[in-house]
Amino acid sequence: MLEIRLIPEAEFQRLRIAAIPTGDRLALFGDMCRANALATVKRAGSGHLGSSFSSLDIVTFLYFAEMNVTELGIRHPDRDIYFSSKGHDVPGHYAVLYALGILPKERFIRLRRLGGTHGHPDVSVPGIEANSGSLGMGISKAKGMAWAKTMRGSGGRVFVMTGDGELQEGQIWESLQTAAHQGISNIHVIVDCNKIQTDKRVEGIIDLGKLERKFEIFGWHVERCDGHDFAALERVIGNFRLITDRPKVLIADTLKGRGISFMEGPTALKDGQGLYRWHAGAPDDDSFEAGYGELLERVNGRLVDMGLARLTTEVLETREKHRTRLKDTAQKVVNAFGEALVEVGARRKDIVVLDADLSADCGLRPFELAFPERFIENGIAEQDMVSTAGGLALQGFLPVVNSFGVFLASRANEQIYNNATEKTKIIYVCHYAGLIPAGPGKSHQSLRDISLFGALPNCVILEPGNGVETKRALEWCVNEATETCMIRLAISPSPGIIPLPDDYQLSFAKGTVLTHGTDAVLFAYGPVMLHEALVAAELLRGRGFSLKIVDMPWLNRVNGMWLEETVGPCAELFVVDNHSPYGGLGDCLLGEVMTSPTLRRLRLIRFAVEEYPACGTPQEALAYHQLDGESLARRVLKSMG
Amino acid sequence: MLEIRLIPEAEFQRLRIAAIPTGDRLALFGDMCRANALATVKRAGSGHLGSSFSSLDIVTFLYFAEMNVTELGIRHPDRDIYFSSKGHDVPGHYAVLYALGILPKERFIRLRRLGGTHGHPDVSVPGIEANSGSLGMGISKAKGMAWAKTMRGSGGRVFVMTGDGELQEGQIWESLQTAAHQGISNIHVIVDCNKIQTDKRVEGIIDLGKLERKFEIFGWHVERCDGHDFAALERVIGNFRLITDRPKVLIADTLKGRGISFMEGPTALKDGQGLYRWHAGAPDDDSFEAGYGELLERVNGRLVDMGLARLTTEVLETREKHRTRLKDTAQKVVNAFGEALVEVGARRKDIVVLDADLSADCGLRPFELAFPERFIENGIAEQDMVSTAGGLALQGFLPVVNSFGVFLASRANEQIYNNATEKTKIIYVCHYAGLIPAGPGKSHQSLRDISLFGALPNCVILEPGNGVETKRALEWCVNEATETCMIRLAISPSPGIIPLPDDYQLSFAKGTVLTHGTDAVLFAYGPVMLHEALVAAELLRGRGFSLKIVDMPWLNRVNGMWLEETVGPCAELFVVDNHSPYGGLGDCLLGEVMTSPTLRRLRLIRFAVEEYPACGTPQEALAYHQLDGESLARRVLKSMG
Repeated sequence: MLEIRLIPEAEFQRLRIAAIPTGDRLALFGDMCRANALATVKRAGSGHLGSSFSSLDIVTFLYFAEMNVTELGIRHPDRDIYFSSKGHDVPGHYAVLYALGILPKERFIRLRRLGGTHGHPDVSVPGIEANSGSLGMGISKAKGMAWAKTMRGSGGRVFVMTGDGELQEGQIWESLQTAAHQGISNIHVIVDCNKIQTDKRVEGIIDLGKLERKFEIFGWHVERCDGHDFAALERVIGNFRLITDRPKVLIADTLKGRGISFMEGPTALKDGQGLYRWHAGAPDDDSFEAGYGELLERVNGRLVDMGLARLTTEVLETREKHRTRLKDTAQKVVNAFGEALVEVGARRKDIVVLDADLSADCGLRPFELAFPERFIENGIAEQDMVSTAGGLALQGFLPVVNSFGVFLASRANEQIYNNATEKTKIIYVCHYAGLIPAGPGKSHQSLRDISLFGALPNCVILEPGNGVETKRALEWCVNEATETCMIRLAISPSPGIIPLPDDYQLSFAKGTVLTHGTDAVLFAYGPVMLHEALVAAELLRGRGFSLKIVDMPWLNRVNGMWLEETVGPCAELFVVDNHSPYGGLGDCLLGEVMTSPTLRRLRLIRFAVEEYPACGTPQEALAYHQLDGESLARRVLKSMG
Repeated sequence: MLEIRLIPEAEFQRLRIAAIPTGDRLALFGDMCRANALATVKRAGSGHLGSSFSSLDIVTFLYFAEMNVTELGIRHPDRDIYFSSKGHDVPGHYAVLYALGILPKERFIRLRRLGGTHGHPDVSVPGIEANSGSLGMGISKAKGMAWAKTMRGSGGRVFVMTGDGELQEGQIWESLQTAAHQGISNIHVIVDCNKIQTDKRVEGIIDLGKLERKFEIFGWHVERCDGHDFAALERVIGNFRLITDRPKVLIADTLKGRGISFMEGPTALKDGQGLYRWHAGAPDDDSFEAGYGELLERVNGRLVDMGLARLTTEVLETREKHRTRLKDTAQKVVNAFGEALVEVGARRKDIVVLDADLSADCGLRPFELAFPERFIENGIAEQDMVSTAGGLALQGFLPVVNSFGVFLASRANEQIYNNATEKTKIIYVCHYAGLIPAGPGKSHQSLRDISLFGALPNCVILEPGNGVETKRALEWCVNEATETCMIRLAISPSPGIIPLPDDYQLSFAKGTVLTHGTDAVLFAYGPVMLHEALVAAELLRGRGFSLKIVDMPWLNRVNGMWLEETVGPCAELFVVDNHSPYGGLGDCLLGEVMTSPTLRRLRLIRFAVEEYPACGTPQEALAYHQLDGESLARRVLKSMG
C-alpha cells in the first residue's frame, strides 16, 4: 500500500520557536514544504513540482524571514505582498501558507479538488494575492499594486516571482519598460532562474541571452545570487531597501526540482536525454516514495544533528500501489492529431508547424522529429508566433499554429485577426479545449476560444470527437478548407472512445448521429461531452425516453437541410457546449433554427459551462456544472416536463 | 477656391531618366511623394502626415535606390520585400508606389475611399505586402517572411519599418528575442525614430532609454544614422549586407512631419506647447496650401538649379475653401464621456484612469489635467496597462481603462479575462467602436469587441446613444455596477443627436423607445446606428409603415418582461448591430426571444456588419453594408413581404 503523509502545521510551529539558527530553520522549512507539496501533488494526481521546488527556498525565505505579512495579517493595507506570476509553482506556495496557518488544512490537502485549492493561484484561496498561471502578467499586476500603495500612501513592499522561460513573453518587457519610466521603485521581481521550461532547457527553446544586462538596460536595478542560499537572499533583499529610485530585480539561480536528487535539473535532464520529466504531473508511486523518503530523511537527519525530535507526520491517504490510471490506457485525440500531422506533413511540403513551448502536450513531437526544418519552436511568445505564421502564409506556406486554447485564442487574438484580414489560410489548433481537465484551474480551462474566433468572418471552427474524426478534421482543414481554420482539441484522455458508424465520413457543416432516438435530439461535440451525452442517452433509455445523440464537430457552420432532417420528429432540441454559453454551438444552431420555418416551432435548450469553470477532478467539475451524464439526463427530462 | 493637385507619374519617369546625381534625385522624389501624399490626405479629409513624412525619405531610398522590386515585379519570389509595421505612414508609401507605376492613379487618388486605398495597409492594394496598423506585429511577420524565403530557398531581403513609439509594444521584444535565437539574419528593421508618438514626445510617454544598447543586448546588429540622409542610408544598408549571422536594425533619426517647416517635430511641438497636431487628420485649407506650396517651391527651385523644367501638376479636385465639417459642429459622445469622467472622478477618489497613448482621442485630457495623480499614461502597451489595472483593482481602486476597441478588447484579451476571474471591478472603455469612421480601415474599426468580452460571465457591456446617455452609462458603471463593465463608445461625430424623451432614465437591461410604431420594432444602439434607424423609420413612415425604434444600450443584458412589453403588437423584430453578426445585441435578444412563449412565434431579423468592414466615407461604408437608413428601410420592407 502507498501512504501519503502530511507534516502538520504544529511541526512548523515547534520549529519556529526552537533555538535554531535562522538559516538552518529556513532550510528545514524549505524541505518540509517540499514534502508537503509533493504529498498534495501525489494526492491530486497532478501539479507542478519542478517549479515549486526551484522557487520554494525563496518563498520560504520571504514568508518566514522577510515579509511582514505574518505580523500584520493577509488583509492589512501595509502588508508586504507576494505572488507568483508564473503560478504553476503554487503547490509550494500553498505549503508555505499552510505552514504559517494562513491556509487551513482541509483546503490545503485537497489540491486541485472542488472546494480545495486550485491548480494555479486564485484569490479565493486564503493568502493568494493574484490570479495567475497565464504567463507574463505578474510584473504589470505588481505595478498596479505598487501604484495603489503609493496613491493610498500605505506601506509594504510588492514581491513578484517570475519564471525564466516566462521572460519570453512580450508583456514582461512592456512592464519592465513602463515600470522604469513611471519610476515605480516599490516592485521587487524575483526571477526563479531554473534554466528549464516545460521540458527543455530555456537556452534550447529561446535563449534569454545576457539577462542581467537586459534588465539593466531596461532601467532596473539588478542583483543575482543563488536562490537556495538564504544568506545571499537576505543580503540582496537588504540591498534592495537602499535602492529607492528604480524597480528592482533579483535573478535567483535555482535548480528545477531542487531537493529531490533525481528531479534536480542537471541530473533529470541527463536521465531524460535532454527532456525534463518533472515539470508537471504527479510522480509514479515508486518515484514518490523515493522522493518523499529523501526529503524526510534529510530533514530528520538535520533535526537529529541539532538534538531535536524527528518529524511527526500524519497519514492523509492510503491507497493501493500501481493503480492503473485512465491516462495510461485511454485514447487521447491529441495523439491522433500528432500522427495525422506527420502524415499530411509528408505529403504537403508547404506545411509548417509552430509551437509555443508545448510540443509534447500538443502532440507535436512526432512532427518536430520527422520534419525539423519545418518545425518552428517559438518559445512562450504566442503573439510573435501567430504573426510569424502570418508572414509564412503571405509567402505561400500553410502554417499550423499550436498552443493551449486559453493562450492562443486570447493572448494572440489581435494577431489572429490581423492574419485573417489578409485572407491567407492558417490552421490554428487550440489544445486543452473545454472544461476538462479541471485541475489546473481557470487560467488553463479554455471556455472562451470559440467566441474569440467566432467573429472572424472567414474562419471555420471545429472540434472532433475521437481519434478518427481528429484525423479527418485535420485533413479537411489542410486539403479542403479555403478559409482559415480553428481546430479545438481536448487534451484529456477519453473515458470511452466515441463510437462512429462504419460508414463515417466528415461532411462539411453536417454532424453524425451516434445513437438514434425519437423523443428529443441532443447535439454535442468533442470526446468529453459526447461521452457524457451517450451516458445520458443510456440512462434515459432505461427510463423509456429516446434521445438521439448527434456528434456535431462543426461549431460555426451548419447545413440547414441536414439540421431539419436530423431533428426529424423530435419534439425538442438540446445542445451541450463544452464552452461558455456565449458564442458556442448552441448560438450557432439557435441562429439556424430561428431561420427555419419547420424548426422554429421547437424549443432549443442550451447547456453549457455557466460562470467560471470549477476546479476539481473531471467528475467533480462535470457534476458541478451539471454536465455529467446523470445531470444531463435529469435536465433533459425536466425540461421535457 | 481650393485646388488639390497631383504630380503625375510621368513627372517621376522624366526625372528617373534625367541626368541627376542619385542623392539629388532621391531628395526630389521624397518631396514629390510628400506633396502627393499631402494631396491625397487633404482630399480624403484624414490620414497620417507626420509619420508619412518622417519615413518617406527611407521608403523613397528603398524603392528607388535599393530594392529589386521594380526590376523583378511585386510578385516575384526573389523580390526584396518592404512593409511598414506601424502602417499609418501608408499615405507616403502609396505615393512611392504610385510614382513607380505599381499603384494605379485611380486608386491612389482615392485614399480612404471605397474602391480606393485603405487608411492603413491592406494586401488588396497593389504593392502592399502585409496588413498593418495595429502596432508591434511587423517584425514577427517579417520573421515569417524570412523563414519562408529560407525554407523555399528564394532570394531577396525583408525590410520592415517600425515607429519608435511602437517599440513600447511587448510583441516587439518577443520578436527581437526569437529572431536572434532563431538566427534569422534576413530581417532588416528600420526604426523611424521621429521621437513623437500620437501627440507627445516619446520620452514623455514611455521613454525608450538606450535604444541602441537594447537592440544589441537582444542580439541584433545595430546601426544608427540620419534617416533623411540618403548617403548615410546607402552606407548602412551596404553594411548590412556584410552581417550574415544575426538580424539587423537601423535606428533612423528622423523628424516627424519632415519637409513642411511648420509640421516638423521641434517647431510643431513648440507651436503646440508640447502637443504635436499633425499626427493624424488632414490640415485645414490654409495649412494645406502653405505646406503644399512649400514642397512644390523647394522641388521646383532644385529643378531650376539643375537646369530642368519645373513640375507639371494636374488638378484632382477644386472645392470651396473653409467648408464647415461635421466634426467641427456635431456632438461627439467621447466629449460627454470626458466630462463625465471628471465629474465622477471628483466625487470618487478611488477612480484611476489608464491610457495607452490615446488620451486626446479617448476624451481623457480633462481628467488627465484635473487629476494627474490618478491618471496613468502607459504608452502603447495595452497588455501591461490592463494587468496594471488588475493590480489596482485588487488593492481597492476602480480603474477606468481606455483604448480603441480593436486594441483593448483584442490585444489585452487574456489580461482582461485574468482580471475578471479575480472578481474585482474594472471599467473598460472601448473607444472607436463600430464601423464608422471607416477611413482608417479594418485595423481600427472595432466590430468584434462585444464578442471578445461576451464570454466573461461577470461583465456588463453597454453602448450609449448620445451624450446624455453616455454620462448616465458611466455613472451607472461607477456607482451601481457590481461587476466589471465594458462601455463601447463611438468616436465619430454624430450626424444628428439622438433624441431621448424628457423623462429619460437609464434602467438596467431596459432600452428606451425613440419613435413609436406598431408594425415592427427595431432595436439599435449607439449614435451611428440609431441615427440610421431613425432615418429608416422616417422613410418608412412616408410609405405608411410604422416602425418602432428602440435605443437598447445594454448589449448583453435584457429584461424579458420589458422586451415582451416593448414588442407589444409588433409582428416582427429587427436588430441592428454595429458589430459583427456574431455575438452582438442580435444574439442576446435572440436568446431571450427563444425563451419567451409569447415572443417565440415572431421572427427576429438581425442586421449587422457582415464580412470585414469596408473602408470609405461613412456613407460609403454604411451603404456598402446596407446599414444606412435607406438600406435599412428597404430591408425591413422586404423582409415583411
